[in-house]
Amino acid sequence: MSEAASMFNASRAGLIIREKQPANLEFPFASLGPVTPTNEFFVRTHFPVPAIRARDWTLTVDGEVERGLVLTYDDLLRMPATTAPVLLECAGNGRAQLVPKAKGLLWDTGAVGTAEWTGVPLSVVLEKAGVKKGAVDVIFQGADKGEVDDPKSPGVVHFERSLPLAKAMRPEVLLAYRMNGKDLTPDHGFPVRAIVGGWYGMASVKWLTHVTVTATPFEGFWQSLEYAYWKRDRERPTLTAVTEVQVKAQIARPALAEAVQAGKSYRVFGAAWSGESDVAGVEVSTDAGKTWSEAPLLGDSVPFAWRLWEFPWDVPKTTGRYKVMARATDTKGHTQPEKHDSDRRTYMINFAFTVEVEVM
Amino acid sequence: MSEAASMFNASRAGLIIREKQPANLEFPFASLGPVTPTNEFFVRTHFPVPAIRARDWTLTVDGEVERGLVLTYDDLLRMPATTAPVLLECAGNGRAQLVPKAKGLLWDTGAVGTAEWTGVPLSVVLEKAGVKKGAVDVIFQGADKGEVDDPKSPGVVHFERSLPLAKAMRPEVLLAYRMNGKDLTPDHGFPVRAIVGGWYGMASVKWLTHVTVTATPFEGFWQSLEYAYWKRDRERPTLTAVTEVQVKAQIARPALAEAVQAGKSYRVFGAAWSGESDVAGVEVSTDAGKTWSEAPLLGDSVPFAWRLWEFPWDVPKTTGRYKVMARATDTKGHTQPEKHDSDRRTYMINFAFTVEVEVM
Repeated sequence: MSEAASMFNASRAGLIIREKQPANLEFPFASLGPVTPTNEFFVRTHFPVPAIRARDWTLTVDGEVERGLVLTYDDLLRMPATTAPVLLECAGNGRAQLVPKAKGLLWDTGAVGTAEWTGVPLSVVLEKAGVKKGAVDVIFQGADKGEVDDPKSPGVVHFERSLPLAKAMRPEVLLAYRMNGKDLTPDHGFPVRAIVGGWYGMASVKWLTHVTVTATPFEGFWQSLEYAYWKRDRERPTLTAVTEVQVKAQIARPALAEAVQAGKSYRVFGAAWSGESDVAGVEVSTDAGKTWSEAPLLGDSVPFAWRLWEFPWDVPKTTGRYKVMARATDTKGHTQPEKHDSDRRTYMINFAFTVEVEVM
Repeated sequence: MSEAASMFNASRAGLIIREKQPANLEFPFASLGPVTPTNEFFVRTHFPVPAIRARDWTLTVDGEVERGLVLTYDDLLRMPATTAPVLLECAGNGRAQLVPKAKGLLWDTGAVGTAEWTGVPLSVVLEKAGVKKGAVDVIFQGADKGEVDDPKSPGVVHFERSLPLAKAMRPEVLLAYRMNGKDLTPDHGFPVRAIVGGWYGMASVKWLTHVTVTATPFEGFWQSLEYAYWKRDRERPTLTAVTEVQVKAQIARPALAEAVQAGKSYRVFGAAWSGESDVAGVEVSTDAGKTWSEAPLLGDSVPFAWRLWEFPWDVPKTTGRYKVMARATDTKGHTQPEKHDSDRRTYMINFAFTVEVEVM
């Protein structure tokens, strides 16, 4: 992808600060390319970045396994690895689009990126350890820690998130140690992080030090209170872990309030994705959602990565404000909703956004 | 300035959403040029944008004046006008740089811009009305309104801000109806707004409908509670209105986390300004503030506008993270502080920021 990537590199404008410490930094989505460079990839951190030396690092694999393991960095590097582009999207991406103003980090459209990750499939390590019968969940624990407002366990805790065993054994779940061909940077989880293709970013635990297999469902803070939404079962709402990335198309160009020339052709351009399925199609509207036209998809479909698309817009001769929108449908037939479902709280925000431009 | 402006136009990346409704939009400061295009100028609104037709609009001038006036839009257009580039900076610009995370809109470095404004000096209108002896303040009232959390006057109120009479009579205070050569846009105060050169943006009231001269100091919500800081008089702190823009240099390039080539020359580039004085000099540090070098100022000094500067950096051959900083000194001898004074609350944030880059 490197050749295509270079053509998009001209207009890069740096990360947007959403919070200074801990660093929460957003990719300027107008700079979209096939692969997001590491120094422009969004950064989401809950606590200060732990300083870990590769030679001091170990990964403990324990719980419901036949053989507990303590792997060193060199052990991991000697195991079979795969490299693949995988999209990570923060579960709160798009929060700045909510009205009224939401609490939490107000990400606009740039808490998402696709990088090439290299790592050992978690299944290889779990098979080496031997998962016992009756195991249900696999917990990732990071070295990052701090105080949280958790009524169940107050005090200092580590960041933790679990996967059901079936997902943990899938090939898109990696213990990753390289990003875009280089060692992870401290911001992105050095020396080793989880990469969970198809799920929102909170599952891809950074600075990973413990993998624990459990016989009972895990109910940690970041899946039962935070990163959880109201799922209704016979109208009774239950807080349920946010997991799979929802289908979404985002517009990179035109940017908000961009001046577009009347009577000419303009290339509307963006990306679309869906967690565990592929993008089947993207449509664009330039009249605030009244009419929609199909937008050609670019390149080939790559599982768990985003798909670029473009739309040649014949810009009208009538000047004024125009509302440009895009929406995607995936291969399971899901399409984007018209508005945000409040049961999702401020997560999984995938309604079709509007980009207002000035035709002049 | 238009020729120079066009060379910077290539990399524009659209406004950053800080709040969707009411619209609070930030200029991506990495796109810095001599004049900020209207569609990239930061937008700060407190309430929904009032829809006003020019033919329905009037400006009432009342209070401590000999002759109350009601001016129409055409009346205003027939009066003598001036055009000048004037910088506007939100009093909360840089708030995202505060640690711990501040409340309020988390502007990074883009709640600032310089546009060319055309309008009638307020002094012309006040002289026409005849200011009475003993007058002290001139209140601007906008058509925008809503509920605020003001213990003194709960309920729906209009946005209001005052100037002392001496400032109100200065030539840099305009009743502006054009921005960058065109009618104001709705976001920027159509049909008429105040422009108060040298003061933070909250003084430049948009959608202006009333100018009221008073014999007693005005103590409105937006100068006694909001947009107010703790001024210490013999250690007793008093909430005092935020007024004059503080001296500041900001870096446009390199952008945060930008990759910079080792062993080559790199052009560090930015702008500097100071409210009611001129920029005397800018210094740049590439070693986190240990050593500083003078950065040449570009073009000529224009009162109340920003001044561009550049610094040719001989990038070391040693790769790694570098901290780039800039600081300005004005003609009154003020320079930027090393850290934020908490008495300023989350306003007037002008300590020297750090841009961390990757030399590779």
